[in-house]
Amino acid sequence: MLSVNAISAPSATGPLERSTIERREVGPRDVLIEIRYAGICHSDIHTVRGEWGDIKYPLTVGHEIVGLVAAVGADVTRHAVGDRVGVGCMVNSCRECENCRAGQEQYCLNGNTGTYNSVDRDGTVTQGGYSTHVVVDEHFVLRVPEAIPYEAAAPLLCAGITTYSPLRHWNVGPGTKVAVVGMGGLGHMAVKLAVALGADVTVLSQTLGKKDDGLAFGAGDYHATSDASTFEALRNRFDVIINTVSAPIDMRAYLGLLRLGGTLVSVGAPPEPLAVPVFALFNNRRSFAGSSIGGIAETQEMLDFCAERGIAPEVEVIPADQVNEAYERVMRSDVRYRFVIDIDTLR
Amino acid sequence: MLSVNAISAPSATGPLERSTIERREVGPRDVLIEIRYAGICHSDIHTVRGEWGDIKYPLTVGHEIVGLVAAVGADVTRHAVGDRVGVGCMVNSCRECENCRAGQEQYCLNGNTGTYNSVDRDGTVTQGGYSTHVVVDEHFVLRVPEAIPYEAAAPLLCAGITTYSPLRHWNVGPGTKVAVVGMGGLGHMAVKLAVALGADVTVLSQTLGKKDDGLAFGAGDYHATSDASTFEALRNRFDVIINTVSAPIDMRAYLGLLRLGGTLVSVGAPPEPLAVPVFALFNNRRSFAGSSIGGIAETQEMLDFCAERGIAPEVEVIPADQVNEAYERVMRSDVRYRFVIDIDTLR
Repeated sequence: MLSVNAISAPSATGPLERSTIERREVGPRDVLIEIRYAGICHSDIHTVRGEWGDIKYPLTVGHEIVGLVAAVGADVTRHAVGDRVGVGCMVNSCRECENCRAGQEQYCLNGNTGTYNSVDRDGTVTQGGYSTHVVVDEHFVLRVPEAIPYEAAAPLLCAGITTYSPLRHWNVGPGTKVAVVGMGGLGHMAVKLAVALGADVTVLSQTLGKKDDGLAFGAGDYHATSDASTFEALRNRFDVIINTVSAPIDMRAYLGLLRLGGTLVSVGAPPEPLAVPVFALFNNRRSFAGSSIGGIAETQEMLDFCAERGIAPEVEVIPADQVNEAYERVMRSDVRYRFVIDIDTLR
Repeated sequence: MLSVNAISAPSATGPLERSTIERREVGPRDVLIEIRYAGICHSDIHTVRGEWGDIKYPLTVGHEIVGLVAAVGADVTRHAVGDRVGVGCMVNSCRECENCRAGQEQYCLNGNTGTYNSVDRDGTVTQGGYSTHVVVDEHFVLRVPEAIPYEAAAPLLCAGITTYSPLRHWNVGPGTKVAVVGMGGLGHMAVKLAVALGADVTVLSQTLGKKDDGLAFGAGDYHATSDASTFEALRNRFDVIINTVSAPIDMRAYLGLLRLGGTLVSVGAPPEPLAVPVFALFNNRRSFAGSSIGGIAETQEMLDFCAERGIAPEVEVIPADQVNEAYERVMRSDVRYRFVIDIDTLR
């Protein structure tokens, strides 16, 4: 076992604090990664606060990880010491079910193994990326192209792929009319990626506070959802709506924005069921869908696409000791647009 | 104006009764149809009982209509006197919006004109097919092939197209795993059509009471939804679920039956919103959609498909004076599978 420095949550209510956690020995197909940056995702906060079910504390979260390969097992073929790599929201899956065989490991029918708070193959609870090192099966380790700034690469592993996957699945391309609901970590990536794919992008945000940013990221239009006239003005407009907001939304109002055959895809979810008026789906033959991160091959495709197009998240880099303050700022939506922990400050 | 015999609802609570209603003069692009058979759809009952909003009584319902062309206007080119024709759920639309131009008149952005209980272009309220004659713009009149038994053709105009359209839109074909929820007028057509398209079809009905029929229609499997083990046994199984049930369903349970990328399409709807757990959509990247009848070109395609494949609804023909009794039997689900009124009994 390897003992490594980390930032952990001692309980649902206590602040995160420095700690030491254990990593398994590097197995034949494992990669040991020296972590350089770890992004802070809203999911991290929901999890450590126990809002998404029971947690075994202490827990280290973080599933937007980039670093350098420090060692590889004897059978590893995809990565070599010194490579720039990343790890996202999952570190294992069964590899045998029809979804895994289709390259959609995120939908593993036997349940994928989350990067933190899952039961690992050795029976321990997985611990995430707010830590100096992690050991991961090579299949779940991504190559991070040099063209992507190091610290900005981390959020691509969750916020990037979570928005890229539905944009690709629902065939967003030149001329597609896309609305992005919410201008946070996920939303700002959805805007940049949809624009890069050639879509006409509209941002729907609670206020116009981030309008200048949205337009700078390439959106052609920006509306406040706090203004009821928005929903009248944009009726029957969009082919695809990417909803990045986790709070409940007025489904009748949002579905009304979809044109013929359009789809509203939620990538954030409230814990309670949403009330969906079925007649709003009848009009324009609309769909309401969910999407969860992306497969490993698709995640690599997204990283390569971002490198080629010069796309990267907007980040604010912080030292490890500012994590608790960063959490408070995320809860206040006071971040443009993703915090990334400089893991060198943990060594 | 033409005065014609009909069966009308005098109020939300009174029984349907014989009456006389007026039809407009045959305009240049109109077809006068001598109606031979009219199907009884569950929607007729919801409407006359005032369950779907305010109704202007007296009202004649019926939107599954077949008959013979008795006269045509000067500019009519698509139909001739003596042709065997049909009319479904709509008799007009704007023809100018993007959906009409795409041949999807049912989704007319300015609202299509329903066959009954809509405001017609002359300002009167449209009256449906429980009547000896109807005058309809030729664009909304379908050709009914001789190969389809006359009385059995009527339900194709609503039950047939309502199930055919989503099966085609969601690419049901050889090998597609389809579940049909509910074995009523729509459900039994969904089974026959999906089987004809080459799908592996499973029926999900409250009980096993109609299992022999379902298998005879070509379903490979038949399960009772009153048995909770059904939802465990069929988890992650289907590509497409066609839900023909108007009552609320347990969305978590039904969505759980969809495999990767699967879609649950509702063609029936409860008046109240359905509670949709978004996490159930995340798993397997599932979709929940609605679909409403079909366009005119697609309805013609469906009729031609049924003629070619020898597909027809199962019907029980009744004289006009048995309509009230038939309504009670529909409410008790005591019909296999569609009542059709012999309109000759109204002359």
